[in-house]
Amino acid sequence: MGAIKLSDAKKNRVPVEIYGQRYIIVGEESEFHIRMVASLVDDKMREIKSRNPSLDTAKLAVLTAVNAVNEYIKLKERVEKLEEELNKQRVD
Amino acid sequence: MGAIKLSDAKKNRVPVEIYGQRYIIVGEESEFHIRMVASLVDDKMREIKSRNPSLDTAKLAVLTAVNAVNEYIKLKERVEKLEEELNKQRVD
Repeated sequence: MGAIKLSDAKKNRVPVEIYGQRYIIVGEESEFHIRMVASLVDDKMREIKSRNPSLDTAKLAVLTAVNAVNEYIKLKERVEKLEEELNKQRVD
Repeated sequence: MGAIKLSDAKKNRVPVEIYGQRYIIVGEESEFHIRMVASLVDDKMREIKSRNPSLDTAKLAVLTAVNAVNEYIKLKERVEKLEEELNKQRVD
């Protein structure tokens, strides 16, 4: 089982279980944060599996990643709008 | 190959290839958006694979999902801060 780096800088090494498989997640994030992320991924995989029972684990995980990146990009667009709004208020 | 719903409402069905595997992604998002998401997931899987060559596809995809959810949550915290700042400016 390899250890996976979430990011550089000082590291926490947190063992987690996702969809029945153990991973060591390595990141500067807190243990609490890493456990929460792992738990969200586990939940999302189970949710997608329940809607698509024929999917194997690899496809299921890919589609979980697609889902997460999709949500990330939508949120990123919201951040840009909020920043624009903030800058406008500063000028007014 | 099953079709995967990103969300409800009116649907686009977009064939994409991620890490050598074809998927039909179904979502109300534009075809452009769906292709961009798929391409980001593909890139991220290849990046993680290059740092962890021994990972199989399922683990690789799980860790790509972990990565994306991690970024999502950090961005979410930024959104909350921006909204707080905006509300403060409105009150001042």
